[in-house]
Amino acid sequence: MAIHAVIMAGGRGERLWPFSKPDRPKQLHAFGTGKSLIRSTYERLAGMTDSSRIYVVTGEDIAAGIREHLPELPAENILLEPVGRNTAPCIAYAALHISRKDPDGVMAVFPADHLVGKPERFHEAIGFGIGCLARRPGLLITLGLVPDHPETGYGYIAPGEALEGAGGLELRRVLAFREKPDGEKAREYIAQGCLWNAGMFIWRVGAILEAFRKHLPVMYGQAMAMVSGGEITPGGVSAFYSAVEPVSIDYGIMEKASDAGVIPAEFGWDDIGSWDALGKALPSDEAGNTCRGEVVVEDSRGNVVWATGKKIALIGVNDLVVVEGEDAILVCPRNRSQDVGRLAKKLK
Amino acid sequence: MAIHAVIMAGGRGERLWPFSKPDRPKQLHAFGTGKSLIRSTYERLAGMTDSSRIYVVTGEDIAAGIREHLPELPAENILLEPVGRNTAPCIAYAALHISRKDPDGVMAVFPADHLVGKPERFHEAIGFGIGCLARRPGLLITLGLVPDHPETGYGYIAPGEALEGAGGLELRRVLAFREKPDGEKAREYIAQGCLWNAGMFIWRVGAILEAFRKHLPVMYGQAMAMVSGGEITPGGVSAFYSAVEPVSIDYGIMEKASDAGVIPAEFGWDDIGSWDALGKALPSDEAGNTCRGEVVVEDSRGNVVWATGKKIALIGVNDLVVVEGEDAILVCPRNRSQDVGRLAKKLK
Repeated sequence: MAIHAVIMAGGRGERLWPFSKPDRPKQLHAFGTGKSLIRSTYERLAGMTDSSRIYVVTGEDIAAGIREHLPELPAENILLEPVGRNTAPCIAYAALHISRKDPDGVMAVFPADHLVGKPERFHEAIGFGIGCLARRPGLLITLGLVPDHPETGYGYIAPGEALEGAGGLELRRVLAFREKPDGEKAREYIAQGCLWNAGMFIWRVGAILEAFRKHLPVMYGQAMAMVSGGEITPGGVSAFYSAVEPVSIDYGIMEKASDAGVIPAEFGWDDIGSWDALGKALPSDEAGNTCRGEVVVEDSRGNVVWATGKKIALIGVNDLVVVEGEDAILVCPRNRSQDVGRLAKKLK
Repeated sequence: MAIHAVIMAGGRGERLWPFSKPDRPKQLHAFGTGKSLIRSTYERLAGMTDSSRIYVVTGEDIAAGIREHLPELPAENILLEPVGRNTAPCIAYAALHISRKDPDGVMAVFPADHLVGKPERFHEAIGFGIGCLARRPGLLITLGLVPDHPETGYGYIAPGEALEGAGGLELRRVLAFREKPDGEKAREYIAQGCLWNAGMFIWRVGAILEAFRKHLPVMYGQAMAMVSGGEITPGGVSAFYSAVEPVSIDYGIMEKASDAGVIPAEFGWDDIGSWDALGKALPSDEAGNTCRGEVVVEDSRGNVVWATGKKIALIGVNDLVVVEGEDAILVCPRNRSQDVGRLAKKLK
């Protein structure tokens, strides 16, 4: 039962503007960690399976950057999406691709743009999930991160009864998926023991295709039409992406699946979805400033400062984001970080 | 009685870092007004006297920029200071230079780096001062700006009895010069009718040299030694600047002079001594933001934003200074603008 690992790398990371740009998005940056996020994600997965079974689904504009960062990835393992259509079409495309090679394989799906502080714990959770699939082949498993604060930027998963356990990990039934909450709701979810939905999945490729057939039959039919003469054709991919509805895998499949499981996990995960999150994820100085590049800080606390060319000097400011990109400079309070994506879209 | 106008242009404008730099200081920038400050100052004075009687005292590193901005100024009218030694030596040097050409001339002294919104009122005040000197040849006159707020960044002048008046202007005796006050003291000064000391003076060249002889006799002797064979020699200038004590004209002469007068004046003066002052001096948008260059402002009020190359985007910040210079970016609250000079010195 070989593992096929799919990296969804189509995101634009607009909330990390102006550092993240359309042709150089978040996943191609290192954010001070030494390796780009896509490279780190790839290496984490390469510890688990052969590079011939690692796939990256991404847009054409980002593909060149991805190839540069992952030179050992076989060219045919980069699956190009002509246009982004949310996660369900992306996963259908990858599942179909994998099922042509290995209909009995296990498919694991990960976003490209997160940090994992404890990769050994990450590998343990995936290994445990694969073990569960041996016994429950129809199960659709998601990883649920144990929250450490009432984050409003993520969806939540409510776990139900324990199905099995081993080595400190357990598999629990999914009671419900919850949309991104407001602050009060987030605190409630945490009190209820809900987990963060990090968009990481493990299932048998046959099981997910079966779930598409059952819960998204139109999309399933459109996806199947990509295959012609036993092969997925470029024309088939184009036709699929121009016809398919943008639907998330959570909404389209996971919420409807009767056999969904969640593995609560802690592996130092951070999606660094915003400058504020980045400031929390990376080390800061004794005044709580997270700085990269040539930064001079006077009488200033809790700032996230990212200098890429010019020197940045702060005097007497607190809890700000100050980022110098190639073409633009952003200044906003950390608690307005979530608004950066909207501005970046507007400026585009 | 010809007028000789001296522009003191040796300042570094460090409080306007990072836009103002050692070799490209404040006076060589336009700050959105269309003409550099030195050019505006020059043109204002050229409306009053011939360019052969306008002088600029400055440092060697700035001189090239000054010549570029004032191509019609005779080369010999740029008086080079080997090193800055505050205003008294600068004025002694210029006075000696002028007295060689025109011992009976009137000398008027101005800083290079201020805005004058109403030049006709400025000319009236100078004209009135020159008239006063015809009747009171020994008088040392300073212009006192009528304050519109309790500024702590300027010194103050306490005016005494009225000596004469004409055309809405009057000459008053100087009671005292006051150092830069704190906020409470500044409010007190304003209640007492004190005026801002803007460093603008009018006197007969013979009167100021006589005042040097009387109040700063050592400096007077050192200055006189610049002349050799009837000429001021480069070696004499070097020797003077390496020997002379740095003293301000206010402290060294004006505070001691028994015959000092002040003309209260209002001519839309602003010294734009800081980014905050610049924000007050220039037009702002309806949210009180003073912006130059490509600036995007969302939900932000009262900021001074200066973009010189990159786009600057603000979200949800108020009363900040955000300035992009050639090599550096500054972020500080407007009310910390006065601290910028100290930082600029430290970074140098």
